Amino acid sequence: MSLDHARAKPHDRLAAALEEDLAAVGALIRERMQSEAAPRIPAVTAHLIEAGGKRLRPMLVLAAARLLGHGGPFHVHLAVAVEFIHTATLLHDDVVDDSKQRRGRPTANLLWDNMSSVLVGDYLFARAFQLMVEPGNLRVLDILANASATISEGEVLQLVAARDLSTSEATYLKVIRGKTAALFSAATEAGAVIAGASGAEAEALREYGDALGIAFQIVDDLLDIEGTDAIGKNRGDDLREGKLTLPVIRALAGASGEERDFWTRVIGRGKVEEGDVERARELMERHGALASTRAEAELWVGRAKDALQRLPEHPVKEMLADLADYVVAREV
Amino acid sequence: MSLDHARAKPHDRLAAALEEDLAAVGALIRERMQSEAAPRIPAVTAHLIEAGGKRLRPMLVLAAARLLGHGGPFHVHLAVAVEFIHTATLLHDDVVDDSKQRRGRPTANLLWDNMSSVLVGDYLFARAFQLMVEPGNLRVLDILANASATISEGEVLQLVAARDLSTSEATYLKVIRGKTAALFSAATEAGAVIAGASGAEAEALREYGDALGIAFQIVDDLLDIEGTDAIGKNRGDDLREGKLTLPVIRALAGASGEERDFWTRVIGRGKVEEGDVERARELMERHGALASTRAEAELWVGRAKDALQRLPEHPVKEMLADLADYVVAREV
Repeated sequence: MSLDHARAKPHDRLAAALEEDLAAVGALIRERMQSEAAPRIPAVTAHLIEAGGKRLRPMLVLAAARLLGHGGPFHVHLAVAVEFIHTATLLHDDVVDDSKQRRGRPTANLLWDNMSSVLVGDYLFARAFQLMVEPGNLRVLDILANASATISEGEVLQLVAARDLSTSEATYLKVIRGKTAALFSAATEAGAVIAGASGAEAEALREYGDALGIAFQIVDDLLDIEGTDAIGKNRGDDLREGKLTLPVIRALAGASGEERDFWTRVIGRGKVEEGDVERARELMERHGALASTRAEAELWVGRAKDALQRLPEHPVKEMLADLADYVVAREV
Repeated sequence: MSLDHARAKPHDRLAAALEEDLAAVGALIRERMQSEAAPRIPAVTAHLIEAGGKRLRPMLVLAAARLLGHGGPFHVHLAVAVEFIHTATLLHDDVVDDSKQRRGRPTANLLWDNMSSVLVGDYLFARAFQLMVEPGNLRVLDILANASATISEGEVLQLVAARDLSTSEATYLKVIRGKTAALFSAATEAGAVIAGASGAEAEALREYGDALGIAFQIVDDLLDIEGTDAIGKNRGDDLREGKLTLPVIRALAGASGEERDFWTRVIGRGKVEEGDVERARELMERHGALASTRAEAELWVGRAKDALQRLPEHPVKEMLADLADYVVAREV
């Protein structure tokens, strides 16, 4: 391991433990993002995929497989497939949200055009599909096909729920399960299955990924209000896009008439003015929405760690537990 | 068979022969386009999928399977998967081309928004993926995964080649193989494989689908110039979008300096004026580009019918041969 174990962040410790696998993932990404017919494809893909994403989802596949003693090589294919699905959804999301910046760089839809983002996203999804077929494991294909459908459903649901102040917490949970947790849980479950896991082990890793993904997205939504302007992400973006995140829903639940007018203007009608992000934060604090949202994220972290208890002892298992803690502790 | 055999068009005769299968396809389409989470999904899908498409691609799956004696039921799943992939690409194409009309109705991107078209397309692709996994046949999955990648590559290549007057016939062939022939050939090959075809039979049906798809697209491109304004399609659309179709490439090959200026303005710079479609047609006729393009389509029809010769006798086989002839004879 190349990093000081005690000081490094859980994500980096996991990356160090999976160093060889991650190198293989990087090589396979570069190989499979090529297109002889259309050189624009690797250009658009490289712009996004090499911009310093954390490769969290491929790591989840690799970690699950290694935890259960898998020797390879097909966990690498599945890890790349999961990263390609993730990259495809980012390309399409940036078109849907009309985003200008991602990972600190101009988005592909801005640098090229929406057309390239749509079509290169489709290409990466197709390449992911090819990679998933290669291991010849129908259970894995079933897991990833179902995850793909859940992801798209979550995205459409988010689109339809945007600016709708009557959005319930149940709908919010469906949206974030789709946009984030579905791929996390498919990653850990697919990693388990390719390692020949028992049904109980695969289910434990699926639950871990699901709970980790939910906690991750809740914290992401919190950081839109509480965070600093991080590289490639601006505070208040979700607010401006009219997204009904958990702190918004909880602040709305206790809102006075005047407060409701504020939310109707900002979220409902999208008229965001100077100082509105601060005002939103104040209202959330007044109703305890930030604290209760953080508690909700911690609840899911607890569930993630409980699921790990049902798995055999392994150094990677401790790292996955630490990763769950880190997901709520992070500030970017 | 419910239609007068002699007078009906080949497409209708095939539909009559596959009547029960097509009813099962219709039922499965309606079942699988649902989404409990997001009702916008079936709304967008129904708008397009029930607007009277010819269901040519699902028929190719069914015909190939029946020709080889398949009793079912999984050819129906594959037929629906192929129709969903086709519908997803139409939704994304209409975003890419900023189209206003498709099959005589306003496009989904116009009725809803680009965002819905992108995300519902993604959903249909994911649903197709689920349907393809269900038969549990890895060879079929491999065929359809490869076709999906070829389709996206063709679309990106078409995007990059648009307005580029130096586009070669080889590039044109790659584009139409991607945008049309890849799914035709995957449909016939997958239908053969699910029926337990030998390698030679599956290859013959793959070649038939490939050649049929190429002929189909060449004629489609011809009709942009020679056709009448059909329902949902306007003459000269490809010209306005700067697409380098075969008649354009061939008219360009013999163009005088003045003619080249015309093509540079219309295709290269997208400055289309009143009367330009007629002028384009004149120039194509002057250089024999329309006749030679039609001859090229007929060459591919010949190849499609040759491939059928390698298959066992069956009433459906004759219909597939007639369908190939009809593809070049059609006027819309």
